[in-house]
Amino acid sequence: MALIVQKFGGTSIATPEKIKAVAERVLRRQKQGNQMVVVLSAMAGETNRFIDMARQIQESPDEREMDVLLASGEQVTIALFAMAVKAAGYDAVSLLGDQVKIITDGMHTKARIKSIDITAIVNNLRKNKVVVVAGFQGVTEDDDLTTLGRGGSDTTAVALAAVLRADKCEIFTDVEGVYTTDPGVYAAARKIDRITYDEMLELSSLGAKVLDIRAVGLAKRYNVPLHVRSTFTENEGTWVVEENKNMESVLVSGLTYSKNEARITISKVHDIPGIAAKIFTPISEAGIIVDMIIQNTRAGEMTDMTFTVPRLDYQKSLNIIKNLEIAGAGHVSGSDSIAKISIVGVGMRNHTGIATTVFRVLAEEGINIQMISTSEIKVSCVIDEKYTELAIRSLHDVFALGDDNPPTIE
Amino acid sequence: MALIVQKFGGTSIATPEKIKAVAERVLRRQKQGNQMVVVLSAMAGETNRFIDMARQIQESPDEREMDVLLASGEQVTIALFAMAVKAAGYDAVSLLGDQVKIITDGMHTKARIKSIDITAIVNNLRKNKVVVVAGFQGVTEDDDLTTLGRGGSDTTAVALAAVLRADKCEIFTDVEGVYTTDPGVYAAARKIDRITYDEMLELSSLGAKVLDIRAVGLAKRYNVPLHVRSTFTENEGTWVVEENKNMESVLVSGLTYSKNEARITISKVHDIPGIAAKIFTPISEAGIIVDMIIQNTRAGEMTDMTFTVPRLDYQKSLNIIKNLEIAGAGHVSGSDSIAKISIVGVGMRNHTGIATTVFRVLAEEGINIQMISTSEIKVSCVIDEKYTELAIRSLHDVFALGDDNPPTIE
Repeated sequence: MALIVQKFGGTSIATPEKIKAVAERVLRRQKQGNQMVVVLSAMAGETNRFIDMARQIQESPDEREMDVLLASGEQVTIALFAMAVKAAGYDAVSLLGDQVKIITDGMHTKARIKSIDITAIVNNLRKNKVVVVAGFQGVTEDDDLTTLGRGGSDTTAVALAAVLRADKCEIFTDVEGVYTTDPGVYAAARKIDRITYDEMLELSSLGAKVLDIRAVGLAKRYNVPLHVRSTFTENEGTWVVEENKNMESVLVSGLTYSKNEARITISKVHDIPGIAAKIFTPISEAGIIVDMIIQNTRAGEMTDMTFTVPRLDYQKSLNIIKNLEIAGAGHVSGSDSIAKISIVGVGMRNHTGIATTVFRVLAEEGINIQMISTSEIKVSCVIDEKYTELAIRSLHDVFALGDDNPPTIE
Repeated sequence: MALIVQKFGGTSIATPEKIKAVAERVLRRQKQGNQMVVVLSAMAGETNRFIDMARQIQESPDEREMDVLLASGEQVTIALFAMAVKAAGYDAVSLLGDQVKIITDGMHTKARIKSIDITAIVNNLRKNKVVVVAGFQGVTEDDDLTTLGRGGSDTTAVALAAVLRADKCEIFTDVEGVYTTDPGVYAAARKIDRITYDEMLELSSLGAKVLDIRAVGLAKRYNVPLHVRSTFTENEGTWVVEENKNMESVLVSGLTYSKNEARITISKVHDIPGIAAKIFTPISEAGIIVDMIIQNTRAGEMTDMTFTVPRLDYQKSLNIIKNLEIAGAGHVSGSDSIAKISIVGVGMRNHTGIATTVFRVLAEEGINIQMISTSEIKVSCVIDEKYTELAIRSLHDVFALGDDNPPTIE
């Protein structure tokens, strides 16, 4: 008998009909002798509907109240889901974040889980009930509702799997698993069977939307085996697991892209201590999150400083920079039509040729690289947005990601 | 400085626009130096939408889960309302049933309040916040969500007014107050300025929908001055208060009707001990609530037994009765096209002519009375449904309910 945590996203439970179908799927696993904990998001579209209503009332909605509003979405789905299990003749109980005592900090709309009390879940599992938990939500020690931010239901599922010492955590979604790249961009994309936590962390942080990055980090920390799979088929999806010898041999696992960023360049900055602080303090005080920062050395004491910000914050950032008095700073330029292409794989650790291959392929296609950033297991390049699909296809082909047996290190 | 509890129903807060308008109205009262506690229902239509979804999943939805589902409706409105207060530059906090610790029994979908902890409300009022409380919902001692049944938000508002020793409880609705009869049926209906708790209890139990009967009972018990008024005007509505000398002089206060019932008659029942139990035990075991019961004495040992049941339970009740073996029982007949017309007024206590006048007026209009039931302050007659409007108009006129100075007892 295994203890399984399953998480279903909003598109999987968007209607009463779909909820019934998912409940049947969960019950099939229970009938095989497993204990089932189900974590649900709000119905697809509900969160956006709530945000729309809130914005009609308050331009920048109060975050405490936003959490009260948003948390009502999962309350609807867990109740309907528990009914669906009962309608099928089995027993279930719905539990809200505060009923499970998912205690978080007080950072409304992006809270972090501090502790979970498993008593209520365990007691109900012992009574052979399907336990249906509201994802995405928690409660502070002062009993204020909180939410965990977008993708927060993944985090709830993994956190529950960790504290319950579940045998696995299955994340159900509307795709078959994690792909070598976005199949909507390149049809040759192949589903990945196994991937390491570290690779998945990079893919999630670089734009792959299938799994929330905090959930992956939590899974890595508590060594929770994650299985990302489709709600609509019985096929195996992608296992996200600890690194092992066999997997290490794969050179490159995946290729992802993000079009959510913008680039700003300040030319001829005096390269003196404190200059970076001078530039980035006002940016961060405005609540803008800077991603890549590149400083090119020039002849003499001058340098070019380039960085990326979320595309929505582009104009705001540009205004801040233009109003700064930076000694000797030259032209401020930028672009909000860039894309960041990233290639990820633990195989890179022991292989230096990957970055070179990326640069060569992009050059062959006539694509200019605006920024480069690397880590132990990834290479990211910022390019003009219009070349995104071309770059993805070329890199996917050159690393043979579509092959059933991708190239390994000799 | 007064402490005022205001309750707004679903039609008053059906859209973000309407919520903003209501928030401004509440703030006008706060600016006059009052402490404001606001109790809200779900947006109009939401409860029915939830019930529809639940029924698509489970024919007779699980009641615990139904409460989890329904309680999400007020969570949405209190959050949006608190945002609206903040958008106007004032402070507010939303509180759910479990945050106020509105403890109820475990009778899901029709729970009763056992206790309320005023700490959270009082602390927030001291900080000069508008306190926005979810109506209709509570929580059991085991932390299960419960709801108080239809009209439950009225009950929440009155209960809060009672424990907070509020100066008044204002129930905002889409009509101007309590009317002498349904203005939709008879345009001559007049808004009542003041009515006693007892009269309001009779009107509510006899079909007037403007106030929930449990709320009126609670208001009477704790002597909470109730003011029923319109969300859309500043006019005074109807005060529901303790009886006083001045009010006693009004003969008849209101006239109401209900078309939700059906009548069943069993003729020639043997009038022996235990016969009523034999008839009504299977009815109540089927969960059917019997309202009026009339037993007519006939010559000899025979009697006719007539009673009313909710119209939705008519066929079910008829089937139960037809399958009973009642010694010597004759024909079972009935009608599901009846109406119950009721006339209410504390003046009746000291005046015996009211019932006679009712019977005379109906006879003059050629309306046959099928059943009669009286209490100290009301007379109810069951008639054919098609005569409802005619009966209302005639009785309204004869008791001069439309006059500004209705007749009083000499």
